[in-house]
Amino acid sequence: MIYPLPSWVYESVIYQIFPDRFAIGKGKTVHDKAHLYTKRGGKIVEWNTLPKHKPNIEHCFEFYGGDLWGIAEKIDYLKDLGVNLIYTTPIFLSPSNHKYDIIDYMKIDPQFGGEAAFKYYLKKAKENGFRVMLDGVFNHLSKENKWFKSALRGKKEHLAKFSFYKNGYRAWQNVDGMPEWNWEETPVREYLLNVVEHYLKMGVDGWRLDVGFDVGYVNNALITSRAKSVSTEKYVVTETWNFPSNWEVVDGIMNYHFRESVIGWLNDSLKNIGYALQSAYDKTPNIYGCWNMLDSHDTQRIATVLPDKDLRKLAIALQFTYPGVPFVYYGSEIGMEGGWDPENRAGMIWDEKRWDNDLREFYKKLIKIRKTETALKIGTFEVINDEPLAFLRKAPYVLDDVIVVVNKSEKQEIALSVPDGRLLAGTCFVDLFTNEEFWIVGGILRINVPAKGFRILKATNKTKGNYNQYKRIY
Amino acid sequence: MIYPLPSWVYESVIYQIFPDRFAIGKGKTVHDKAHLYTKRGGKIVEWNTLPKHKPNIEHCFEFYGGDLWGIAEKIDYLKDLGVNLIYTTPIFLSPSNHKYDIIDYMKIDPQFGGEAAFKYYLKKAKENGFRVMLDGVFNHLSKENKWFKSALRGKKEHLAKFSFYKNGYRAWQNVDGMPEWNWEETPVREYLLNVVEHYLKMGVDGWRLDVGFDVGYVNNALITSRAKSVSTEKYVVTETWNFPSNWEVVDGIMNYHFRESVIGWLNDSLKNIGYALQSAYDKTPNIYGCWNMLDSHDTQRIATVLPDKDLRKLAIALQFTYPGVPFVYYGSEIGMEGGWDPENRAGMIWDEKRWDNDLREFYKKLIKIRKTETALKIGTFEVINDEPLAFLRKAPYVLDDVIVVVNKSEKQEIALSVPDGRLLAGTCFVDLFTNEEFWIVGGILRINVPAKGFRILKATNKTKGNYNQYKRIY
Repeated sequence: MIYPLPSWVYESVIYQIFPDRFAIGKGKTVHDKAHLYTKRGGKIVEWNTLPKHKPNIEHCFEFYGGDLWGIAEKIDYLKDLGVNLIYTTPIFLSPSNHKYDIIDYMKIDPQFGGEAAFKYYLKKAKENGFRVMLDGVFNHLSKENKWFKSALRGKKEHLAKFSFYKNGYRAWQNVDGMPEWNWEETPVREYLLNVVEHYLKMGVDGWRLDVGFDVGYVNNALITSRAKSVSTEKYVVTETWNFPSNWEVVDGIMNYHFRESVIGWLNDSLKNIGYALQSAYDKTPNIYGCWNMLDSHDTQRIATVLPDKDLRKLAIALQFTYPGVPFVYYGSEIGMEGGWDPENRAGMIWDEKRWDNDLREFYKKLIKIRKTETALKIGTFEVINDEPLAFLRKAPYVLDDVIVVVNKSEKQEIALSVPDGRLLAGTCFVDLFTNEEFWIVGGILRINVPAKGFRILKATNKTKGNYNQYKRIY
Repeated sequence: MIYPLPSWVYESVIYQIFPDRFAIGKGKTVHDKAHLYTKRGGKIVEWNTLPKHKPNIEHCFEFYGGDLWGIAEKIDYLKDLGVNLIYTTPIFLSPSNHKYDIIDYMKIDPQFGGEAAFKYYLKKAKENGFRVMLDGVFNHLSKENKWFKSALRGKKEHLAKFSFYKNGYRAWQNVDGMPEWNWEETPVREYLLNVVEHYLKMGVDGWRLDVGFDVGYVNNALITSRAKSVSTEKYVVTETWNFPSNWEVVDGIMNYHFRESVIGWLNDSLKNIGYALQSAYDKTPNIYGCWNMLDSHDTQRIATVLPDKDLRKLAIALQFTYPGVPFVYYGSEIGMEGGWDPENRAGMIWDEKRWDNDLREFYKKLIKIRKTETALKIGTFEVINDEPLAFLRKAPYVLDDVIVVVNKSEKQEIALSVPDGRLLAGTCFVDLFTNEEFWIVGGILRINVPAKGFRILKATNKTKGNYNQYKRIY
C-alpha cells in the first residue's frame, strides 16, 4: 500500500504544540479558568513554573491553562516564524493535561475551549494558509470512557470492545489508566474510522497516529485508506521509533532514526552519518512524508541535548536539508531547554527578552530556504562526502540543484565530485547564507567550510557577459 | 525531469471554456458591448448563430460577447455539474476571438472584462473550491505586439527576439499573423517565464501550454521548473497530439491518443483497444497528469463523432475510468454538436429545454463517482479482458479496487480473472450504477454485461452475518 504523498507536504514545515503549555487565549490567566481544572480533580500551576516529575504521575494533572483560543491568537507569531503546518497533541475530552487518554473522541476538551475554540482555531489557521493536523490516539483510551465503564461493570454489549482478563484488562504498557481498544471488533473499528473521517471532513488536513507500532500495520492501513477516501490530499503520519523503512501503509513516520543519527554523530558516538542517512533514504519510498525530528514532547529538548549552539545549528541545518518534513517543537526555536517528560513541556516563553533571537533568526532563514528551494522540497539525496558530511539534492531542473556540506570539526578545504552531468563546467554555486561563490570545473567543486559550520550551495546561471550556456540544457 | 504530480490533480475533473462563447455577464447582450469589438475591427454575432468557416479567416473576428464575468456567474452551474478545474482558452489582449495571437501577456482582454473581471472570476472560482488554469501561448504572438512591430521596423533592440528572413519572418505554421518567439534569447525567455510566474502567484493553479511540441522539450522544462519554483502544487500540461510517453518535462499532455484509440475502437476502425490503452499507461510515468480528451476547441465535438448515444456513453465512461484527468469540453455535457473549427465553438446553450438532460445526469453521476472512488483517482491500470474491454484499477487498500467493463456489442456473460491476491473468495462487487452484485470465487469474477453497456464494479465487504473476513487484510 502506498498513496501519492499530498503535494503540499513537500512544502510544509511543521510546528508541534502541546496545547496546555503554548498560550492562554482571550486575555485570561489560569486562575480565570481554574474551575475547568479543579472541578475535575486537577491542579492549576503558574505559567513560568518548570514542570517536574512527581510520584503517582501527579504531574499529569497539573494544568497551565493553555487552549485553542491561545493558539489561534498566536497565528501571527507562527506566520512570522514561517512554519505552515500545525500539529497539536490531543485535544479531545480527557482527564490528563497531555490528553493521551481520551474519554470522548467527538468532544473537544472544554479546558482547551471546546468546540467553539476548535472551530475558531481551524478557521484562523486556514485563513492564514496553515495546514492543521490532529493527534489520533487510537490504540487506547481513558478508563472513564462510557463504553469501557459499562464493560467493566460486566455489560456484554461492550465487553468485546476491550480485552478483559481474570484480573484486569489489556492496557497500554500495562498502564491502568489506558485500556487498549480491541481493533478487531467491527464496531470499534468503525467508530474510530468515523472519528478519522469526521475531523478530516471538517477541514483538518491529517492525523498523527499515536503509538502507531501498537496500532499495527493493518489498522494503520485502514486509517490511511479511510483518510484518503475523504481526499487524496489528506496526510497520515505514524509514531514509531525505528528505522523509517517498511511503513508504506502510511504517508510517513516520525523519523526518530534521523534524530538518533544526527545527535549521535554530533556528540561523537556515531561515526558513519552518511551511511545512516543514505540507507534510510534509499530504503524508504515514503521518506518525503516522514518528519525530521530533533525533539518532541517525548524527548529531551534539543537545546538540552546539544547545548553547544554551533553544533546545534548543524543539527538544525540537517533537519531542513534532509528529505522529509522539518519538525519544530514549540519553543525550541527560541532556545527553550528541557529534560525528559515532563520537563520538556514547560510553558512557552512569550517574554521576548528571554528569547535567543539569533537562534530564532536562524530558524526563520532556514524555514524560508526550505520553502523556496525546489531541491530541498523534492530533490533526490546522495551523499558525496563522509567527513565533512556533504550531499547533493538533485532537482528535476539542473539549476535548482543544491549541495549541502556540514562540518563538525576544524575549518577545511575540500573538493567534491558532484554526480550530475547536467552541471556544466564553470557553473557557479552560491552559499544561500553568506552569498560566497564557488565554481565547479570538470565535475569537481572546490570549497572551504568554516569550523563547526555548514554551507547550503545553490547552482546558478552566472555567466561571463550575457552569454547563457544553459539555454539548451535542463 | 519529473516532478511529483500535485495531489489535487488526482481528484480533478476539468472543464474547458472558450470564453467568447460561454456566457455574457452582468446581464448584457453582445449589442451592449458592441463597441469593444467593432472599434477593433471585429463583427458582432447573435448568440444562437452557428459559427461557420469563412474565407480569409473572417470567422476568427466574429464575436459573441462572452466574458469572464459570464463564467464567474455560471460557477453554480459548474458546481452542480461537479467539475472542479476550469481551463479557459487564452484571455490576454489579442485581436481574434480565439486569442491565440497575443499582443500583451500582462493585459486581460477588455472584451473579456479586463483585469477586474479576471480577478472576480478567480475569487469566485476559489471561493467555490475550483482550481483554475490558463492557456499559455508561448510559441508565437500577435504581429501587433509592440516589440514585434518595432523589430519589423528594423529596430535592432528587438530584432533577435524573432527570426527575420530576407522576406518575412518565422511564423507558426507560416501563418503571417502569428510570428514565433525566439526562445533562445534570454530576454524573451525571461519575459515569458515571468508571465508564467506572475499569474501563478496571483492564484492561478496551472498552465496549459499551447502547441507544446513547437515550444519543445527544453522550453517546456524551463516553464515547468519556473512554475514549480512558485509551488510544487502548480500544474503544467502541454498540448501535443502524440502517444503520451516521453513528455516527462511536464506534468502531462492533452491525451489525444486516448481520444483516437477510444473513438477508433467504437467506430470499429481500431481493434486492439486494450493494447493501445495498456501500452500508453505502461510507458507514461506521468499518465495521471494527462487529460483524457474526447473533444476540444480543436476537434469535432464528441456528439458529432459518435451520434449513437449508447456508444458515446461508453466513450465517456472510459474517459472517467482511465488514468488521467477527465476532460469536458463546454456544452458536450448537454449534447451540443459541432464539426471542425469553428463549428465546434458555438455559443453555450442556456435554454434548458434544449439540453439532453439524460446525458447531463449521466455526466453528473460519472463525475461524482470519479471524485469519490480512490481506485479511479490513483489506482493502477491493468487490462484483464480484450472484448469486451475490461480492466482492473487496483487501489492501495484492497476494498477500494474497481473493475471496469465496457461492451460495445451484444449482451454477454463473461468470466474475468482478477489479478489481485488480496481479494478473498466470496468478495462481492457492486455495480456503482445499478447496484447489481457479482461475487468472486477463486480469483474469477463472473458477470453479465448489457448490450452497448458498461459496468463500474466496486469491491465491498459484504459478509454473511456480521463476520468480517477482511479484518486482518488490507
